[in-house]
Amino acid sequence: MTHNIAILGASGYTGAELVRLIATHPAMRIVALSADRKAGMTMAEVFPHLRHLDLPVLSKIDEIDFGGVDLVFCALPHATSQAVIKTLPGDLKVVDLSADFRLRDPADYEKWYGKPHDAPELQQEAVYGLTEFYRHEIAAARLVAGTGCNAATGQYAIRPLIEAGVIDLDEIVIDLKAAVSGAGRSLKENLLHAELSEGYHAYAAGGAHRHLGEFDQEFSKAAGRPVHVQFTPHLIPANRGILATVYLRGDAARVHDALARRYEDEIFVHVLPVGRHPSTKHVRGSNFVHIGVVADRRPGRVMVIAALDNLTKGSSGQALQNANLMLGEDETAGLMLAPVFP
Amino acid sequence: MTHNIAILGASGYTGAELVRLIATHPAMRIVALSADRKAGMTMAEVFPHLRHLDLPVLSKIDEIDFGGVDLVFCALPHATSQAVIKTLPGDLKVVDLSADFRLRDPADYEKWYGKPHDAPELQQEAVYGLTEFYRHEIAAARLVAGTGCNAATGQYAIRPLIEAGVIDLDEIVIDLKAAVSGAGRSLKENLLHAELSEGYHAYAAGGAHRHLGEFDQEFSKAAGRPVHVQFTPHLIPANRGILATVYLRGDAARVHDALARRYEDEIFVHVLPVGRHPSTKHVRGSNFVHIGVVADRRPGRVMVIAALDNLTKGSSGQALQNANLMLGEDETAGLMLAPVFP
Amino acid sequence: MTHNIAILGASGYTGAELVRLIATHPAMRIVALSADRKAGMTMAEVFPHLRHLDLPVLSKIDEIDFGGVDLVFCALPHATSQAVIKTLPGDLKVVDLSADFRLRDPADYEKWYGKPHDAPELQQEAVYGLTEFYRHEIAAARLVAGTGCNAATGQYAIRPLIEAGVIDLDEIVIDLKAAVSGAGRSLKENLLHAELSEGYHAYAAGGAHRHLGEFDQEFSKAAGRPVHVQFTPHLIPANRGILATVYLRGDAARVHDALARRYEDEIFVHVLPVGRHPSTKHVRGSNFVHIGVVADRRPGRVMVIAALDNLTKGSSGQALQNANLMLGEDETAGLMLAPVFP
Amino acid sequence: MTHNIAILGASGYTGAELVRLIATHPAMRIVALSADRKAGMTMAEVFPHLRHLDLPVLSKIDEIDFGGVDLVFCALPHATSQAVIKTLPGDLKVVDLSADFRLRDPADYEKWYGKPHDAPELQQEAVYGLTEFYRHEIAAARLVAGTGCNAATGQYAIRPLIEAGVIDLDEIVIDLKAAVSGAGRSLKENLLHAELSEGYHAYAAGGAHRHLGEFDQEFSKAAGRPVHVQFTPHLIPANRGILATVYLRGDAARVHDALARRYEDEIFVHVLPVGRHPSTKHVRGSNFVHIGVVADRRPGRVMVIAALDNLTKGSSGQALQNANLMLGEDETAGLMLAPVFP
Repeated sequence: MTHNIAILGASGYTGAELVRLIATHPAMRIVALSADRKAGMTMAEVFPHLRHLDLPVLSKIDEIDFGGVDLVFCALPHATSQAVIKTLPGDLKVVDLSADFRLRDPADYEKWYGKPHDAPELQQEAVYGLTEFYRHEIAAARLVAGTGCNAATGQYAIRPLIEAGVIDLDEIVIDLKAAVSGAGRSLKENLLHAELSEGYHAYAAGGAHRHLGEFDQEFSKAAGRPVHVQFTPHLIPANRGILATVYLRGDAARVHDALARRYEDEIFVHVLPVGRHPSTKHVRGSNFVHIGVVADRRPGRVMVIAALDNLTKGSSGQALQNANLMLGEDETAGLMLAPVFP
Repeated sequence: MTHNIAILGASGYTGAELVRLIATHPAMRIVALSADRKAGMTMAEVFPHLRHLDLPVLSKIDEIDFGGVDLVFCALPHATSQAVIKTLPGDLKVVDLSADFRLRDPADYEKWYGKPHDAPELQQEAVYGLTEFYRHEIAAARLVAGTGCNAATGQYAIRPLIEAGVIDLDEIVIDLKAAVSGAGRSLKENLLHAELSEGYHAYAAGGAHRHLGEFDQEFSKAAGRPVHVQFTPHLIPANRGILATVYLRGDAARVHDALARRYEDEIFVHVLPVGRHPSTKHVRGSNFVHIGVVADRRPGRVMVIAALDNLTKGSSGQALQNANLMLGEDETAGLMLAPVFP
Repeated sequence: MTHNIAILGASGYTGAELVRLIATHPAMRIVALSADRKAGMTMAEVFPHLRHLDLPVLSKIDEIDFGGVDLVFCALPHATSQAVIKTLPGDLKVVDLSADFRLRDPADYEKWYGKPHDAPELQQEAVYGLTEFYRHEIAAARLVAGTGCNAATGQYAIRPLIEAGVIDLDEIVIDLKAAVSGAGRSLKENLLHAELSEGYHAYAAGGAHRHLGEFDQEFSKAAGRPVHVQFTPHLIPANRGILATVYLRGDAARVHDALARRYEDEIFVHVLPVGRHPSTKHVRGSNFVHIGVVADRRPGRVMVIAALDNLTKGSSGQALQNANLMLGEDETAGLMLAPVFP
Repeated sequence: MTHNIAILGASGYTGAELVRLIATHPAMRIVALSADRKAGMTMAEVFPHLRHLDLPVLSKIDEIDFGGVDLVFCALPHATSQAVIKTLPGDLKVVDLSADFRLRDPADYEKWYGKPHDAPELQQEAVYGLTEFYRHEIAAARLVAGTGCNAATGQYAIRPLIEAGVIDLDEIVIDLKAAVSGAGRSLKENLLHAELSEGYHAYAAGGAHRHLGEFDQEFSKAAGRPVHVQFTPHLIPANRGILATVYLRGDAARVHDALARRYEDEIFVHVLPVGRHPSTKHVRGSNFVHIGVVADRRPGRVMVIAALDNLTKGSSGQALQNANLMLGEDETAGLMLAPVFP
């Protein structure tokens, strides 16, 4: 059976990545693509790398007949997403890639996003989309909220350790290095090639980054008590990739063991042998996560390093993995593409 | 039916690219991987991006039992390839990715490669692997010689124009821009990141590049008379991609028409609307070729610009396309991956 | 004696490059910096790499007292420049970095820039700023028009050959590879890191690029007859550098000799030994030009390859060199910085 | 007065960087350049970006007459350096850029470098070259040991805080991001453009990096008690730059104040306003250090972030600054070059 798929916000990088992945999916057909400001254009005009595909012309959202659609990927900007999703048919399956439905508590949402939520009932309904940790809820969900790409990376490194009780919950430092496509196709001076290449720097350090809201929510939930990590993202001159170097208190062998056991049946999450360092280069263009564990010279201190591709496992690949679950397909369908190296 | 595949020289970039592509091929199984100096290692150690795949351990060539092998990809260095292939079982299908069997004339081989050919009878047997122009010969061949990646790019732009008789055969200039992976995983100073990034330059200009041997052979054959192009390759700070800007004498409309007609039934070769410029970025990681045609302000002069990924359509993708033909599979099997952008 | 310098349009890359160069100039002091939309900000806020310098706060142009200013660098956008310069005191020395005063013929200006010139009398007065070819006129000029960066590169390769009569004037092809800073600090999608890095393509091919107006004017003037070159620029994933590969008809030895003799007394222009290829990497951040000559395998055909840094020798370095002449300083003052490698 | 300078090991990046800086130095003249394997070549052949300079031909060390030499920069590989320096005239001033004389304790040297020191008496004599902290000792020294580039970056961020007593000495985490030129011009697979660009990863994590020896020595000395930091370096796809993100326990205002006061008279070290993030891009090609301080959302936790250019302030610029002191020249001579941006 082939599922009819619509993608809202198809002119951004996560939209294009969804199209790339679905292109080889055995049971999905894209029947609608929206891009308000580019309505009437073809995808080949907006993304010439997709010109070999037979795709619908870009349309406005209100021109789409959702009657025949089985699932919608919503790759719209934050805030726009909630306004649009609440107008969609109430029984339509939705995977949202924005930040709008990641936080469960309305107060948390308002704190991190600076305004009250427009669709609080949907906020309650949404399931958090970190597949390996919410698989059953996602399979049964109507609305799934894709995670932040940084938030996903940190959680893959840390979450099993909280669950296993092998680290000090008050001493978690996440030093994260993110490539530029996570910032989207937006026209900002700091995203220009001339500004970014050959340089790197921290940003939103000290507690300003919105993905902290996700860390707080999810780690506290996993721990059964408040957990507040320290988190510093850096912008790196590369297009795809997130590397999270996490500084923890715990025993390296127990930490490695907890991760290895937690992920031993997971197809997309690979724990490397002790002492090996993952690289973003080795997961680029794929849905895989590589995790390394390194003991510090000072006993009781350990680093966990996680690498993934922000556009694939960090957003569009995760979204497709969740959609597969929601539609009863094989969870890995369309997602077994090997990383592109070099 | 699943075909058993061996890859000789699996520790180089074209070997890794073959594994990446075959990973999602519906009818191929890799049963042997060789890498003489790295024999005994796993592919995950040599190429950590392939660690999710269940692959044979790297071995020496003489350890491989070719009895159960249906087809061999030979990704060995030039000169080594001919020495190895002549020792393989005489009925084994072989796709060679080296330069060893591209030139039909022993004198040409010696001229461009500086030594007599070691397997002249195989040199006669081999079929030139430019799929779209030798499809029937390839389907019937036992030994197919993969083309040079630069040679392929130039031929996609020019060959149909020679056949259609719409250009001046004595006025062909190919200014080519190549990314660095075409030089392989070799330890040379000029391939270091610090040396290459942020700079670019010509190399082997004026008639020194060996791919001229292929241009001479193939263009002369297509024209039925000697054709000697002018060819200048440049090294560009990028990992994948070849862009050939070809300066020609002819009418732009007739040139565009000849290309569009020649490739209208080709799945992998796309001719853009007149005046559009292809980019290597739009074919990266894929088997597609994008071709643009631009008229010069001076009547009678025209540029044809072709872009492809050197590791995919320029070598390993081409090799797989040819193997599909040789094995009776769908020519596109394993090759419909969309380009990875950004 | 120290000259008082004003820079109009200091918030762009050429403005910042002027400040970088003047920072170590022994006889210049920056007394005013303008940036209309960023007036009131410090240069350290706009360009943190200049924070160690003691510089005037950015102001609006009409706030500047030009009474004590000896020379103005005008790094404003095209069209804005002519509107501003015609309001400046008539005896103020001006080096303009825009395209506004490069073309002498009002009809040519209108043809290439799409509108009549606003200051035609200044257009007549301006001297074309290619230092090595207009040194005496520049030393005596009040208003000097900086050349296009691509136009400069092509002229360094070709102009002496026209003067020496050693090439066919009807067969000149310039295939040019430009880094991204030449496009300025403007917010355009194709200048984003995610769009540009790892890809490259031609643009404005076939006769659309405005620098053709300069080539036509200058080459025709040098030849004493109309000369119309073929010119294809390409955008390369690097920040600084232009490489022009010029295809010519002529004898390589005579071509090399003509260039070597023409530049033997020029400090900034270096002709490499026959057969050597220049690289943009070897001139980056400097005012030097490297020129190589390679004979083609077909007698009578030759390539001349020129490399320079678009922001230095291609614009701000050239501007400073011209200002030195206009102010009676040593032509090389502030300009002998070695390239930054790697 | 002009000082005669020799550079041993001139064919590496730090050697080339020394030449670049000395090129505009008002009181130094390079009289000898050594490069054993490239003896007989010109610098223009080894580093074409230096072809405009009039430099001695590369020679073997034993061909150099040190009689007329005032100061030697020794940019030889580790271990080679100690063997060479002990053969030089005992009164010759030497600035060593290798690791050989950084550690004062022979046991420490053996621990980190795996063999006993060959010149222990010189090891005792050498002064540690972190200029801002050993200025007087350096001015009086005969032999100065250049610091590790990573070690310098971390010390600029942390050392004044130890001296001021405003941080917890047992809770220091240095997450460092280094560009590739720090690894030198060596032919290693992981330094190839194809391997490095578009990817990043940690290396030598957990206590394996030799610069820890310097941190231990210097921080313990400054504190008057043992201090053992946690240190994780990462390799970033860029050519120049080190960014150290240091996680500390202390009050952000006090930390910022301690840094601002310590560096207020230092020309090369700039402390940014609270909350601002430095970037390697803003110091590239220069001798400047930018330091930022950001308070974490959790009181008592603070990040200090330091950026410098590993080839300039991290090695060759530092070496020149020290040589200026040793020769009685202005400490900033040849070093006031502004960063190159973009």
